[in-house]
Amino acid sequence: MATTASKPGLFTAANVMNLLLVFVPVAMLMEWVFHSSPAAIFVVACLGIIPLAGQMGHATEEIAERVGEGVGGLLNATFGNAAELIIAIVALRAGLFDLVKASITGSIIGNVLLVFGLSALAGGLKYETQRFNRTAASLGSTLLVLSGVGLVVPAIFHMLVGATAPGAERNLSTEIAVVLMVTYILSLVFTLKTHRHLYMGDAGTDAEVAHGPAKPMGRSIGKLVLATIGVAVMAEFLVGAATETAEALGWSEVFVGVIVVAIIGNAAEHSTAIIMAMKNKMDAAINIAVGSSIQVALFVAPLLVFLSYVIAPQPMDLIFTPLEVLAVGLCVGIMAFCSNDGESHWMEGVQLLAVYVILGIAFYFLPAAATAGAH
Amino acid sequence: MATTASKPGLFTAANVMNLLLVFVPVAMLMEWVFHSSPAAIFVVACLGIIPLAGQMGHATEEIAERVGEGVGGLLNATFGNAAELIIAIVALRAGLFDLVKASITGSIIGNVLLVFGLSALAGGLKYETQRFNRTAASLGSTLLVLSGVGLVVPAIFHMLVGATAPGAERNLSTEIAVVLMVTYILSLVFTLKTHRHLYMGDAGTDAEVAHGPAKPMGRSIGKLVLATIGVAVMAEFLVGAATETAEALGWSEVFVGVIVVAIIGNAAEHSTAIIMAMKNKMDAAINIAVGSSIQVALFVAPLLVFLSYVIAPQPMDLIFTPLEVLAVGLCVGIMAFCSNDGESHWMEGVQLLAVYVILGIAFYFLPAAATAGAH
Amino acid sequence: MATTASKPGLFTAANVMNLLLVFVPVAMLMEWVFHSSPAAIFVVACLGIIPLAGQMGHATEEIAERVGEGVGGLLNATFGNAAELIIAIVALRAGLFDLVKASITGSIIGNVLLVFGLSALAGGLKYETQRFNRTAASLGSTLLVLSGVGLVVPAIFHMLVGATAPGAERNLSTEIAVVLMVTYILSLVFTLKTHRHLYMGDAGTDAEVAHGPAKPMGRSIGKLVLATIGVAVMAEFLVGAATETAEALGWSEVFVGVIVVAIIGNAAEHSTAIIMAMKNKMDAAINIAVGSSIQVALFVAPLLVFLSYVIAPQPMDLIFTPLEVLAVGLCVGIMAFCSNDGESHWMEGVQLLAVYVILGIAFYFLPAAATAGAH
Repeated sequence: MATTASKPGLFTAANVMNLLLVFVPVAMLMEWVFHSSPAAIFVVACLGIIPLAGQMGHATEEIAERVGEGVGGLLNATFGNAAELIIAIVALRAGLFDLVKASITGSIIGNVLLVFGLSALAGGLKYETQRFNRTAASLGSTLLVLSGVGLVVPAIFHMLVGATAPGAERNLSTEIAVVLMVTYILSLVFTLKTHRHLYMGDAGTDAEVAHGPAKPMGRSIGKLVLATIGVAVMAEFLVGAATETAEALGWSEVFVGVIVVAIIGNAAEHSTAIIMAMKNKMDAAINIAVGSSIQVALFVAPLLVFLSYVIAPQPMDLIFTPLEVLAVGLCVGIMAFCSNDGESHWMEGVQLLAVYVILGIAFYFLPAAATAGAH
Repeated sequence: MATTASKPGLFTAANVMNLLLVFVPVAMLMEWVFHSSPAAIFVVACLGIIPLAGQMGHATEEIAERVGEGVGGLLNATFGNAAELIIAIVALRAGLFDLVKASITGSIIGNVLLVFGLSALAGGLKYETQRFNRTAASLGSTLLVLSGVGLVVPAIFHMLVGATAPGAERNLSTEIAVVLMVTYILSLVFTLKTHRHLYMGDAGTDAEVAHGPAKPMGRSIGKLVLATIGVAVMAEFLVGAATETAEALGWSEVFVGVIVVAIIGNAAEHSTAIIMAMKNKMDAAINIAVGSSIQVALFVAPLLVFLSYVIAPQPMDLIFTPLEVLAVGLCVGIMAFCSNDGESHWMEGVQLLAVYVILGIAFYFLPAAATAGAH
Repeated sequence: MATTASKPGLFTAANVMNLLLVFVPVAMLMEWVFHSSPAAIFVVACLGIIPLAGQMGHATEEIAERVGEGVGGLLNATFGNAAELIIAIVALRAGLFDLVKASITGSIIGNVLLVFGLSALAGGLKYETQRFNRTAASLGSTLLVLSGVGLVVPAIFHMLVGATAPGAERNLSTEIAVVLMVTYILSLVFTLKTHRHLYMGDAGTDAEVAHGPAKPMGRSIGKLVLATIGVAVMAEFLVGAATETAEALGWSEVFVGVIVVAIIGNAAEHSTAIIMAMKNKMDAAINIAVGSSIQVALFVAPLLVFLSYVIAPQPMDLIFTPLEVLAVGLCVGIMAFCSNDGESHWMEGVQLLAVYVILGIAFYFLPAAATAGAH
């Protein structure tokens, strides 16, 4: 949801973010002037996206504050994963469906295992036991479990039915995307209207992250537009170089999407959640991890399916590779367990990170043939 | 468990139920006099079963009240899913094993996703947050998880072993059916004897559903016998027309069983649970959904395996299709999560229904070939 | 963790244990003097290992008490599953990888379903409801879920990728084994250092199990050495006779490992946990079941992978059969559910045992061909 990483007073995080902005012009020079190697452009574009994504989240929040709670909440909810969405759209237009779907998977497992894992570890090193509101956390987990289930049913359908029903699978994916999107719209009614007070506690912590006196609206909009253009340009570089980079390094498209793109696209959430955890605000940390995952499953994924009918070479389905299905299934289950006991320790963080590393190793070793075979 | 839908004071539900009884003679005329099309008979027989199933539940409860708590509880527990059992027995005799097993699956996912989903939604539209006793709900969920696991092990065994051990599978299914039935008998000792007080709260709410002064015992028995005969006749019509109807509509036998037969057979539970939820008695609503699912997994399913040795063309195994295994696995897991946080909101209902719709779409698109291939 | 079964005052359990020691010389006579049939030697060696494993646990605890809490805790944590480890090492040296991996699986499902199931049943027959600290239990369950996930990822990777990447699988298994072992070492820091107080309650109950005045250190060390040698000799007999016994009885190597070896190796934990439960100390019973499972997943399994590079005919991977993956997955999920509601009843025990019996039936019927095919 709220995804700003910079905050007056926390100079380190904000400064690092601002320093990273230097990679934006560097990437442009490398792509347009020096025609550097794809791998070099890929790395620099990745580094350039991180601060731009942070700026987008920042600007969105500033605007959200000015337009009133209702519309503002809607803005935050819709543009919370905008950087990721832009990268996915660029990849979608290029027909790199494996990369698009892998970035959806990677975003969900990254938010749960990496973001919440690092938060629990970083927070746990400062506080022996960190408690959070298990009612709110459980509500989020339940929605996450149901979202994850909906997302992976087409893939499981594909595994069960195999290649015997090619016509049915496109329809199945599109119909399920409609169900997911309707569910998302209803979840906005829930979080922004009928049960807004449940999320008030977080609004409070978010407000604290935010920034002194309100800024002029025009400046915020300008910042948002600029950052969005910047992300879009960097995304073009990144996606354009992704395939060649993956080949050069012996990585599969799925590994690039699940691990690399997902980390880049969610870097802002990562830093915010970890800062929250280190301030012993585990509720906010969990909310960022879970809320962002729900949004990807219920909003980003179906939106990309719909957009694929318009901008992609052919419509995209929701058939993830079996390892992605496993990873999403494990993550939603694990998040549900972890949020259920209402407290976290550093060891829980270590274990979440261990599962992330283990899944990362598996995605790394997964041969490109196996992922291609699943489609 | 208690499955009456009509109640003095709630005229709407009771009246709708009574009005539906008109479909019973209509179905008889269509089958015996006019020889109507199978699809027409199927639909009318479905509509006729709904009120008859309600009458059976009603009469069983009246008798249960008279014979004392012990025997009465046993009666309620044994005949709680009698309508479903009768439909399944008719299909079993006709050798329609896919339909029988699909109705078992459909009953479990229908109770959890549809019944509890509609209850949480209907109740949630009236009450912002509905709380229930998480201890009792968790106990039920744990038993449901364990029941579901036992039920699907033969199917998973089949998936893993494939066609390499045809002889072993029948024995495996029958032996597991014995374990499930023994577990069921012990669960009756638990709910009716050693831990009866845990279920007292529900008995209280059930009593409230029930009906003023006790009715004469003879009348109740007569009503039960009549309703049972009615259900049996309608079940003959329904099962006789099912295969042709499915073919005419392009549906698989599994889809008919999972969605259509299961909704019909559980209509009475559905209405009772929703009424309970709208009166903010979520404990009763959960108990109906979970209790009915446990009963189907531990009692109805193994009983049908045993009966198949006597009345079916050949013994039936417990090998469900992979999509059914997935659906049951998801449902028991989801129910466990949902009951765990001790409260529900309308959005939880929406999400449960979304998963039901998504599974329904998957069962709809599942080609008949794929389901046949699994057996 | 603490695994002594004998206690002054509980004469029955201690005496039965001591009586079983007679099978140790009997096994030696049968193997070395009478050259009895493998099946007979197998049974007698099994019976002989049980009391020796108990002695090892006993001696380890006596030493642990003397050397101070830190080192003592480490000793208990490392040698808690020593008997199992010795059997596995002997089987590893003989290249019986199916048996080794099956004993790992069997140990996890045995601890959760059989040990905790019998504890809940035995305790539940004496006490109507048994409560335990759900915070501590949930922490253990979360770690168990994450441990189980890490353990089975290589097997799932194998199922997904098939035989297309033989080179990758060994590396994957070994790298994951490193992650598991690092996690284990960190978990020792957690339980013995940073969060020791969380486990204090158990230390208290353990102390109570223990034995009047401290025994001389030398005697305890002598007892440990003797018992270890005894276990090693019996393990040689057992493993040497396992293959022929399995063939004679029509059992697969996996069945022998999952059911027989696991029960033998964990007999001491079984009796301690049940005694704890019957004294209404469910926290200790859960801790034994969960702690022992975590230790097998995070310490015993990776240690065996590392040792296989040195002592086995070829390196061992962590690719379990699909039924083993299912069994471990079910168990960790079930344990998480059961520990979550903070109380147990005899019916929960019955259901856990029912799942154990059902899985046992499935492993029994699993044809040897299917298990071999998975490797």
